[in-house]
Amino acid sequence: MSESDHIAAAPPEQSDAPDPVMDEETNLRPGFVEKVLDAVEAGDDETARALVRPLHPADVADLIELARADEREGLVKALAGIISPDVLAELNDYVREGLLDEMEPQQVADIAGQLETDDAVALIEDLDEDEQQAVLERMEPDDRAAVEEALSYPEESAGRLMQRDVCAVPEHWKIGQVIDYLRSTQELPDDFWEVFVVNPSHHPVGTCKLSTILRTPRDTLVGDIMVREQSLIPVDMDQEDVALRFQKYALVSAAVVDDENRLVGMITVDDIVHIIQEEAGEDVLLLAGVGDEGDINEPVRLTVRRRLFWLVVNLGTAIIAASVVSLFQAEIGKYAVLAVLMPIVAGMGGNAGTQTLAVAVRALATNQLTESNTLRAFARELKIALANGLALGLLIGTGAAVIFHYPLLGLVMGTAMIINNLAAGLGGILVPVTLDRFRVDPAVSSAVFVTTITDVTGFFSFLGLAAAVGLGR
Amino acid sequence: MSESDHIAAAPPEQSDAPDPVMDEETNLRPGFVEKVLDAVEAGDDETARALVRPLHPADVADLIELARADEREGLVKALAGIISPDVLAELNDYVREGLLDEMEPQQVADIAGQLETDDAVALIEDLDEDEQQAVLERMEPDDRAAVEEALSYPEESAGRLMQRDVCAVPEHWKIGQVIDYLRSTQELPDDFWEVFVVNPSHHPVGTCKLSTILRTPRDTLVGDIMVREQSLIPVDMDQEDVALRFQKYALVSAAVVDDENRLVGMITVDDIVHIIQEEAGEDVLLLAGVGDEGDINEPVRLTVRRRLFWLVVNLGTAIIAASVVSLFQAEIGKYAVLAVLMPIVAGMGGNAGTQTLAVAVRALATNQLTESNTLRAFARELKIALANGLALGLLIGTGAAVIFHYPLLGLVMGTAMIINNLAAGLGGILVPVTLDRFRVDPAVSSAVFVTTITDVTGFFSFLGLAAAVGLGR
Repeated sequence: MSESDHIAAAPPEQSDAPDPVMDEETNLRPGFVEKVLDAVEAGDDETARALVRPLHPADVADLIELARADEREGLVKALAGIISPDVLAELNDYVREGLLDEMEPQQVADIAGQLETDDAVALIEDLDEDEQQAVLERMEPDDRAAVEEALSYPEESAGRLMQRDVCAVPEHWKIGQVIDYLRSTQELPDDFWEVFVVNPSHHPVGTCKLSTILRTPRDTLVGDIMVREQSLIPVDMDQEDVALRFQKYALVSAAVVDDENRLVGMITVDDIVHIIQEEAGEDVLLLAGVGDEGDINEPVRLTVRRRLFWLVVNLGTAIIAASVVSLFQAEIGKYAVLAVLMPIVAGMGGNAGTQTLAVAVRALATNQLTESNTLRAFARELKIALANGLALGLLIGTGAAVIFHYPLLGLVMGTAMIINNLAAGLGGILVPVTLDRFRVDPAVSSAVFVTTITDVTGFFSFLGLAAAVGLGR
Repeated sequence: MSESDHIAAAPPEQSDAPDPVMDEETNLRPGFVEKVLDAVEAGDDETARALVRPLHPADVADLIELARADEREGLVKALAGIISPDVLAELNDYVREGLLDEMEPQQVADIAGQLETDDAVALIEDLDEDEQQAVLERMEPDDRAAVEEALSYPEESAGRLMQRDVCAVPEHWKIGQVIDYLRSTQELPDDFWEVFVVNPSHHPVGTCKLSTILRTPRDTLVGDIMVREQSLIPVDMDQEDVALRFQKYALVSAAVVDDENRLVGMITVDDIVHIIQEEAGEDVLLLAGVGDEGDINEPVRLTVRRRLFWLVVNLGTAIIAASVVSLFQAEIGKYAVLAVLMPIVAGMGGNAGTQTLAVAVRALATNQLTESNTLRAFARELKIALANGLALGLLIGTGAAVIFHYPLLGLVMGTAMIINNLAAGLGGILVPVTLDRFRVDPAVSSAVFVTTITDVTGFFSFLGLAAAVGLGR
């Protein structure tokens, strides 16, 4: 997202007095938010606008998000005219949807027309089919064509992220020509950081950073200073892979090419940082079973449905585990201490499994764990599981033997802990790696499998061993 | 990290044939890795070097990481001369440490001297005090001063990330002067994307993007086209806050200032993307209790120690939960079905608590959940917990009543489920928010507290209700 300069207003300057607007973590202070909302409620739009005017669009978006749903409409009305299209582009999807629903298609079309293609697409792609059509029909033909083309690419692909305005020059130009071209051409993106060099069939053949262009004498040929190697992004590449590539090669921008390797757009790093953050942050949400968003602005009904789904799936695994316990009701009835200790064995296995799982999921997501080192990672996790299992088994086994004055109980519990730790280590890496091989996102459903493994193994090994040696008889 | 151009070699070009070196996710293919390692083992350094030469430094670093620990030394020897300083900068900390340990201080000093300050610092900060000293003594005075200054700032602060070479110009210059200055000055960073404008006391007063400079006539004054608003980074700001600010304002570079608001360096987005990724990805690791790294290259002994620590902490909570169960041994002895069903109540509460916790932790980390909307988030989670609790309670209660032909059992189990879901929702948000208020990272220890809450509440509510109504008598 790039802001046009006239609205890219002040993040706070340093000074000794604490900033009354922003805290050290670059959040709006609660006192400031309240002041604006109070002014709006009192009908004092002038004060509200004076407070908000110096804010960066990203902070205005924050302000709207921080207001309660029932305050937002009033706030937006009071700020009419100083809420720029960029504010809408920065808004949370759900909050934006709420605001767009109140607007006429013509208004939305006007806003989209003022945004860069990628931001306009982000705005429009969330609308219903009908609304989309209504907005698109009201846009300028050029802008509309650009947005429609972007929408023709799959969701979350490079084609949706890219800007079509690109600065492309031929290899045989001189640097002076390039500079003159940049000075005279209007159709350039607001922000760009390198110039792409193309051949007559519009295939990318190199790039020149702007800093290189600025530091090179005017009569040098572009072909003599361009970097020939570059990372070309296929237009249908998934945004997660685009993000990984930007990160790996520390790219600031990259050319996007079509099937025939022709330059069709560019992606800049500012459009990628939020994807890197989202993709890296979504693993914890997926593993916890809340979907990939965990957005606190999501309507409650949606959230309930999403979470309930995973809870019911987990209920299935809990029932499987319980049915293992039910096999040993006779033993438990005779010796209830088994019921006291069995959750420890199962739970500790679950913890160890979660540890391995989290590491494996992150390693897969960051491309640290690949086919080349899978076996080594397996061996590593087994070693760790064995070490931790032995340590915990000894600790808990001794503890149980001492507390209950019953060495055999300690032996059973310690042995069950070791077995379950091994199951946890094995399951914790085997499950995500297997899912990944079948191209299923390992973060989505690994936790259910691993918990089932550790619960079943924990209960079965502890209660089974207890039954076998006749504990409590 | 910025690569000098002569080594920024080819990420693969598109073509119809599948790339023999990289897969679609920009990973080295296992076949390629094997080919290189086989050549090294066969003593055919020439082939190995020919294979590796076209790779980007980030891919060479990947290759070294993918080799087994015992293969790495041979690989590095075979590739001597084509492993550039940038490869070392890209390497995983543990793998790099292994390689640096084999080198003389002079070698390390030479490598550090060829890197930009921020990369040199990353290389040197991990060494032992003695080794650091030995390396620093062997560096050029200028480079040494730069690194020593950076090391004087706290770990993970802006001062460690920044480059000291900055392009700064006065407001009264003309654009033509700026361009001439850029063409004639050697002491500029390799990569820069904007020029900082400073006043005579070296305080930043504005910025000019390079694209603006390139598109502006030579006789325009810098002061007339610069953007006056900018995000200034205090030199002691934590890197996580720096990353959040880059992301929030879509920055490509930012000026770093000292206590007196003087320009002392700049941070560019390419140094930030991996921090955004690490910080966003570490929550899942912290919540799972594996520390903030979860690095598969970490020595096994360290990993065992780290994980064992959290497992033992979790053991404490498991024992607390077990002691709740032990209060009801008499009831369980009489009616072992309680032992079969109690893990379901506790476990489902744990799942619901983890859901809320994951959302809260991410919302806190991304500054979505701030003081201004904490109360609303509480209310939201309680609503969700009530809805899910009722749904699950009804489902499980009915199920238990039917399966065991015992309506009272169903009532007890359903009620316990509702109670535990509420406890999960409340604990899942209260715990991380409270920790955050006390400036403790909520991802680190929330899970232990929340699990304790849901285990204790689950066992106590289910077994307590069962005892109260006299289930099984």
